[in-house]
Amino acid sequence: MKALVLKKDGLRFEAGYPAPEPADGEALVRVRLAGICATDLELARGYMGFTGVPGHEFVGVVESGGEGLDGRRVVGEINCACGSCEYCGAGLGRHCPERSVLGIMGRDGAFAEYLALPRENLRTLPDGISDTEAVFLEPLAAACEILEQLDIGAEDSVLILGDGRLGLLVAQVLALRTTSLLAIGRHPGKLALLARRGIATATVAPARERFDVVVDCTGAADGLEKAMALVRPRGAIVLKTTVAGDRRLDLNRLVIDEVTLIGSRCGPFEPAMEALARGMVDTETLVSMIYPLEEGAEAFDHAREPGALKVLLKP
Amino acid sequence: MKALVLKKDGLRFEAGYPAPEPADGEALVRVRLAGICATDLELARGYMGFTGVPGHEFVGVVESGGEGLDGRRVVGEINCACGSCEYCGAGLGRHCPERSVLGIMGRDGAFAEYLALPRENLRTLPDGISDTEAVFLEPLAAACEILEQLDIGAEDSVLILGDGRLGLLVAQVLALRTTSLLAIGRHPGKLALLARRGIATATVAPARERFDVVVDCTGAADGLEKAMALVRPRGAIVLKTTVAGDRRLDLNRLVIDEVTLIGSRCGPFEPAMEALARGMVDTETLVSMIYPLEEGAEAFDHAREPGALKVLLKP
Repeated sequence: MKALVLKKDGLRFEAGYPAPEPADGEALVRVRLAGICATDLELARGYMGFTGVPGHEFVGVVESGGEGLDGRRVVGEINCACGSCEYCGAGLGRHCPERSVLGIMGRDGAFAEYLALPRENLRTLPDGISDTEAVFLEPLAAACEILEQLDIGAEDSVLILGDGRLGLLVAQVLALRTTSLLAIGRHPGKLALLARRGIATATVAPARERFDVVVDCTGAADGLEKAMALVRPRGAIVLKTTVAGDRRLDLNRLVIDEVTLIGSRCGPFEPAMEALARGMVDTETLVSMIYPLEEGAEAFDHAREPGALKVLLKP
Repeated sequence: MKALVLKKDGLRFEAGYPAPEPADGEALVRVRLAGICATDLELARGYMGFTGVPGHEFVGVVESGGEGLDGRRVVGEINCACGSCEYCGAGLGRHCPERSVLGIMGRDGAFAEYLALPRENLRTLPDGISDTEAVFLEPLAAACEILEQLDIGAEDSVLILGDGRLGLLVAQVLALRTTSLLAIGRHPGKLALLARRGIATATVAPARERFDVVVDCTGAADGLEKAMALVRPRGAIVLKTTVAGDRRLDLNRLVIDEVTLIGSRCGPFEPAMEALARGMVDTETLVSMIYPLEEGAEAFDHAREPGALKVLLKP
């Protein structure tokens, strides 16, 4: 099959990559559309030491092994849990220590014609959600995860740092809970997408204001340091950014101000799907370009550009 | 008056340092005993850029300006709040942005014959608490702060990293909530103090076990990295360590495992005083030595020794 393959020496297109062979309980899914996310760009820089087919944001059709799901249009939870450890037993399969993660850890991903996932990871899509919307469900679920971890109310002031792909989704999701929201980014064109939805934006952080909650969606190594300067004492920082390599920072402010720092990764698909189905979140304007798989390297270059929004791949 | 004074070129004893002049609402307190804490050692290394008289753990007698408190034996809350900002209004005076902090920020401290504190910061002591116990109330309150920030129950497994002065107090306080507690340190002699109270100890962290809560009391720059390796996914790390300068660390694990990191500083005196009065915490065995103020430099050197426990200064 056709696939984009990450090897030690870089990313390249292969026309004859072996198709995945689904294990017991797994379905084979034909990929219709896949999204490039910041994690994919980091993987290409060596993050996690991943080799194989990257890609974990996708929409596809079940080709075989889906039992009742064959032929259905699906998205998928990317963490493949063992199902029998204490984390799985506690409903925390996304943290199963034996897990593989689609296109990130121990399992080939979505930048290919086919992928394999456990049947129980698949979520069927209503017809009202288009492919270009559905491909945002995985990052939208990651945005919704913040609301699972932190009780944000209408009285809380929230600052979003970063107007990248994830930042724009996080801002829209958190705007459902509080109107005291400010999104800071570098790109007026991206911020305008939020402003059109009534969300306050700025290209420079306020000099004196401090926020109850700051979400670091910068994807940059210095994002956390900026967040620490903008959160109030006893406030919370949600850290969405992972970066290849170490960060160097002064954490004393965290101790002195008794700030809570919450690492946040993947989230639940159900609220994400509901938000999309009810039109509460706009993803249509977030697509920059769709590339064929053969032009994957160019697509990655495009996704790296500062002004780029979501770059999609079509097998 | 006699005082230990920290200047840009180091710490020295002065026999003729000016006594503090209490402002409106402040009392003058004659210091009976003061404790050297890790923060003092960091201040001497340049942390916070503090100059003046360090020292914030003390027991004393109100000399004047105490109104009903003159002649009473007291300890004191070290954060001196403005009383009128939004933090003070919300009962968070310890985080008042206009505050001074005794012996740490903008206010001379306890390594002297006299100190000045707002009357409302003073707490009178029952006769049942001795001076050598009372001098532990400030760090014991900092240990109790963890229970204010995090709901630790009998079913939670807790790991304490560091068998220094604060670590030994934290272990004793958290042992009041859970028996599933392990204290890790480098000094068998110190750990034996906990073992005598029925607390499990070890000099090496378990290879495979992961804990619901890990408290970093190492006072070392690499303590947080160790904590991240020992906390379970979705678990919590309490960070008590402040160090002069930056830390270099890989925070991706925090995001991937969705760990919550909680900065923790000063705490409430009331539960600390109750624990001490009821004999639930032992501090008597934690005193290494009492030095006269004139030998302050030697006392600091002693406090820096790896095996040292609490080193006290007597004006």
